[in-house]
Amino acid sequence: MPKIEVCLTPALLHLYDIENSIVVVIDILRATSSITYGFENGATAIIPVMDVEDCETYRDLGYLLAAERNGEVVTGFDFGNSPFSYTKEKVENQTIVLTTTNGTKAMRMAQERAYEVIVGSFLNITAVCNYLKQQNKDVLLLCAGWKDNFNLEDTLFAGAVVAQLTDGFALADDAGVAALDMYEQAKTDLRGYLRKSSHSHRLIKLNIEEDVQFCLKPDLCTAIPVLRNEKLVRLT
Amino acid sequence: MPKIEVCLTPALLHLYDIENSIVVVIDILRATSSITYGFENGATAIIPVMDVEDCETYRDLGYLLAAERNGEVVTGFDFGNSPFSYTKEKVENQTIVLTTTNGTKAMRMAQERAYEVIVGSFLNITAVCNYLKQQNKDVLLLCAGWKDNFNLEDTLFAGAVVAQLTDGFALADDAGVAALDMYEQAKTDLRGYLRKSSHSHRLIKLNIEEDVQFCLKPDLCTAIPVLRNEKLVRLT
Repeated sequence: MPKIEVCLTPALLHLYDIENSIVVVIDILRATSSITYGFENGATAIIPVMDVEDCETYRDLGYLLAAERNGEVVTGFDFGNSPFSYTKEKVENQTIVLTTTNGTKAMRMAQERAYEVIVGSFLNITAVCNYLKQQNKDVLLLCAGWKDNFNLEDTLFAGAVVAQLTDGFALADDAGVAALDMYEQAKTDLRGYLRKSSHSHRLIKLNIEEDVQFCLKPDLCTAIPVLRNEKLVRLT
Repeated sequence: MPKIEVCLTPALLHLYDIENSIVVVIDILRATSSITYGFENGATAIIPVMDVEDCETYRDLGYLLAAERNGEVVTGFDFGNSPFSYTKEKVENQTIVLTTTNGTKAMRMAQERAYEVIVGSFLNITAVCNYLKQQNKDVLLLCAGWKDNFNLEDTLFAGAVVAQLTDGFALADDAGVAALDMYEQAKTDLRGYLRKSSHSHRLIKLNIEEDVQFCLKPDLCTAIPVLRNEKLVRLT
């Protein structure tokens, strides 16, 4: 039976042996949610980069540039990382270059060693779980966290995935047990649970309540983004 | 209002600003439980060291030497790290040199920057909480974890401390929220909850069920160990 593990932050990734694992990168607010939604709406590819400067180097190459810092679209860029920017009208048949600090870092670190790196969010949770059930590979759920530390929303999502996969996978670490318990406690009101977060004041200040609500909706999408070399493309 | 935070493993300690914080080091199974019990039973000092070799260098200096690896007392040493070794008959007026990988590492790392480093366990939980309430300093609960990764038992204890301190402290990070929720879920049967742990098979194999039960008992002790230079001594 393959195993499933939960890595609570990228700062702990070195502790996991992932050479034969599918790594699911999780950055619920908002990178992996927006990426999922972008592929659902027909994006051709999304290139995740670390910095606004990296993003800038793609200018004049025909890409859409997405850059946000402190909740605001960076001047001169096409849009930020709100999922509502990733509509069909904007992204269909486009390649997007997206700067997202936590999410990009997690993807690149995982890619160095993992069998495969895919992107998960509540928006595509069942599609991701069904895919994982079919692969018969070990799974690592990698929470991008907040500046290398633990956060509630990514861990809740990891728990939601564990809840769907308990039958066919061996739950192999304490973080998975904790994530599952948190999710079971929170599942009837995920938004309410996140109000306990230390980030909740930050989220209110950013005025992204609609984004948060949207990012917690399950199964609006069937797209699964997968990292191939430098680009995310649609796997299914 | 001072803040309280929870650091889930020593690998995340660099993310916390602890210059003005009291750090409570937590290694429930079994280092910080045994250390607490040792001071309760009259030990003069306990010197935590990383390796059996470090421990060996104290031989012939009149100290008791405690070294255990893989659940067995290392040949030639006085005892291991079972709390039942730290009885009054054995430890009163003695200085003990103890090798404990996770706990020692956590203590040394914290000591480099923290205002003060004390030792917590269920055995002295209320004494520790009362002390913290009186200090008006920020608090970091530092889980020693298992080989630098998250574990359930240390996090449960952190949650138990947060539960006692919610009135006078601001809960400042998501890890504290998660720890508190885990504890609230587990508190009526801590031992049962830990059976979900990935380590539970390891614990059974080690044949330390009595140790585990003992290490989960609250308030058997009033001693609070504090790190002063290289030694733990009794604070109160």
